[in-house]
Amino acid sequence: MKFATLPNGTEDGALLVVSRDLTRAAPATDIAPSLLAALRDWPRVEPLLRERAGQVEAGNAQGLVPFAPEDTLAPLPRAPQWLDGSAFLNHGRLMDQAFGNEPLPDFDTHPLVYQGASDDFLGSNAVLLTPDEALGIDCEGEFGVVVDEVPMGTNPQDALDLVRLIVQINDWSLRVPGPWEMRRGFGFVQAKPSTGFAPCAVTPDELGQYWQAGRVCLPLQVAVNGRQIGTPHGSEMDFHFGQIIAHAARTRKLGAGSIIGSGTVSNAARAAGSACLAEVRVIEKLDFGAPQTPFLHFGDRVTMEATLPDGRLFGKINQRVRQLASGQ
Amino acid sequence: MKFATLPNGTEDGALLVVSRDLTRAAPATDIAPSLLAALRDWPRVEPLLRERAGQVEAGNAQGLVPFAPEDTLAPLPRAPQWLDGSAFLNHGRLMDQAFGNEPLPDFDTHPLVYQGASDDFLGSNAVLLTPDEALGIDCEGEFGVVVDEVPMGTNPQDALDLVRLIVQINDWSLRVPGPWEMRRGFGFVQAKPSTGFAPCAVTPDELGQYWQAGRVCLPLQVAVNGRQIGTPHGSEMDFHFGQIIAHAARTRKLGAGSIIGSGTVSNAARAAGSACLAEVRVIEKLDFGAPQTPFLHFGDRVTMEATLPDGRLFGKINQRVRQLASGQ
Repeated sequence: MKFATLPNGTEDGALLVVSRDLTRAAPATDIAPSLLAALRDWPRVEPLLRERAGQVEAGNAQGLVPFAPEDTLAPLPRAPQWLDGSAFLNHGRLMDQAFGNEPLPDFDTHPLVYQGASDDFLGSNAVLLTPDEALGIDCEGEFGVVVDEVPMGTNPQDALDLVRLIVQINDWSLRVPGPWEMRRGFGFVQAKPSTGFAPCAVTPDELGQYWQAGRVCLPLQVAVNGRQIGTPHGSEMDFHFGQIIAHAARTRKLGAGSIIGSGTVSNAARAAGSACLAEVRVIEKLDFGAPQTPFLHFGDRVTMEATLPDGRLFGKINQRVRQLASGQ
Repeated sequence: MKFATLPNGTEDGALLVVSRDLTRAAPATDIAPSLLAALRDWPRVEPLLRERAGQVEAGNAQGLVPFAPEDTLAPLPRAPQWLDGSAFLNHGRLMDQAFGNEPLPDFDTHPLVYQGASDDFLGSNAVLLTPDEALGIDCEGEFGVVVDEVPMGTNPQDALDLVRLIVQINDWSLRVPGPWEMRRGFGFVQAKPSTGFAPCAVTPDELGQYWQAGRVCLPLQVAVNGRQIGTPHGSEMDFHFGQIIAHAARTRKLGAGSIIGSGTVSNAARAAGSACLAEVRVIEKLDFGAPQTPFLHFGDRVTMEATLPDGRLFGKINQRVRQLASGQ
C-alpha cells in the first residue's frame, strides 16, 4: 500500500490511498481520518486499507482522482518523534578524514541518533525557508521507517517487526551551526530546519526483495539543479533500522507513528557519488586540497528519488530553497 | 489562570480550569477540548477562559469539583516541541570543575539547548519506569514556559511576548548514558526518559512580580524521600527564557504549545543546595574527594514545588521511580 496526505486544515491532514504506479488516488478518511490515526489503530484499519488499495488498483474506488503529488503534505505532517540515525559509517569516516577529527566514541558499535523536531515536516514540493545562505545550506538524502508503538527495551529484531511504513527523506541541514552544535554536545537544533519527505509512505511489501535485513536495498538518486550528485545504495547501511529503533527505545517508548531515519546514504565506492553536498565537498577537499562545489544558494532545487527496477516507489522529492522574508 | 488536564482517552486530554488555591476545578472543554487546542486558538479562547476562571474563583462554575492533582495528566501530555536549555551556568561550571572538563564552546554567550522527546510527558504523580538502577537515575528541577507559535528568527524580547504559560518540570535524567551521549555530539536520547510536570500550567500574571525579566524568580524546593536536597532560586538564570526561545527558533519556527525548559535550577551559593543529585554528588566530590549520595533507587520518591510567599502556584511534583517489568 502507498499513502499520501492532503491538506484539510487539521494538523495531521487527510489520508489518501495511492496506486502503485502513483497515477491515481482515492480518499480513505472514512477508514481513518489521517495516516497518523491509521498507525494508532493499525490492526483494525490495515485490512480495510488493503481493500481500498485493491479498489484503487482496479480503478473502482470511490472518489478516485489523478494523483497530484505537488498538492500533498508530508505523509505525516507531524509525528510523535523524529529520530535520525547516522547509520552509513562511510559518511562519518569521510568527514573525520577530511577534518582530522578522532572518530566519535563507539561510532561503529552503537548507532548515532539525534532527536529532531517533528512538528513541521515539509511536503515533497515544499520550499525550505531559511534566513541566510551563509549558514551552509545542504540537503541529505535518506531512507526512513515509520513504526508502530515501540515498547521500552525492544530488541533490534523485534523492532523490525514494528516497522509499518518506509519513507524517503531530505534531512535539510545547515553546515555552519552543525559542527559547532556537535562540539557543544547537546545535539542539533539550529543545524536542522524542517525535514522534507517524498510524497508517499509505503508498506514494506511494496519493496519486495529490496526491503532486506532491515535496509532499503535501492539506490537513491540525488540531484542539485538537475545535475546528479550521487546514486548511493541503501544496502551499505552499517546499522539496520531495527538497531537504530532499539537504540532509541532503550530507556523510553516511541509513540506509534514515530519516524526513524537512516542518516545520509553513503557508499565506500567513489563512483556512487554522494547524497549531500557536505560529502561532495569533503571528497573534493581530500582529492584537490579544497572544496569546489558550493553549498546551496537561494533558488536552488534539490531532487531525490529511489525507484524500483520496474517502476516508481515513493515519488520524488523536488524542493527548493528560498530566503525567509523579514517578518515571514 | 491555572490549567490542568484530565485523561479522556485522547492524546491531549481534557481541559480543566483550576482555582488559584488549587482546591477546586471545572471543565472548560466547551471552550477548547484540550490545553493544546486552546494554545492554538489563544486570541479567541483567552477571554472565555478568563471568564470561566472567574466563575471557578466565585464558586459558581458549571461542573465545579474538588481539584485532585493525582488524577491529572501533564498539563500538556504531548507538545509540538520540547526544547530544554541549560541556562543556569553554575550547574555546568560545577560539572566542569568536578570532572576537569574544558567549558563547552560559547557556553556563556549562547544557551545550550537540546531537543527532547515530546510525545509522552508524565503527570505530577506518575511513576518513572526505567530498566536499570545502574543507569544513574536522577531528577532535575526546572522551570519552563509554553509558547504561542514562534516565527523563525524571532528576537529574544519579542519571544518573551509569546510566552503563554509557565510550568514546573522534573527533567528525569540517566547519568551514565548522559556524558557518553554528550561526547558523541548528537545530544541526548537514552539519557532523557519521559519528562515530568507539576499539575498546573499557569499564565504569567499568576506569578505577579515573581515573573520578571523572563525568569521565574522563586525558589524551587526539591526533596528525595522527604529529605530536602535544595531550594535554588530561579532569579539566577543566566539566559532568560526569551533568549532560549530565540536560540531555538533561529532557523525554524516552533509550533504553538511548544515547551521551553530552563535546565536545572542552580545557584552559586552552596546554602541553596541543588535541584538534582548529580550536582549534590559533584559538590561532595569537590569537598570530600568522592560523591557520597547515591543516585535514585527503585521505590525512591522525588518531590518538587515552587510556591508564592502567600500561596501555592503550580502544585507539587510527587513522582516515584520503578523498575520496568520485563515485557511492560
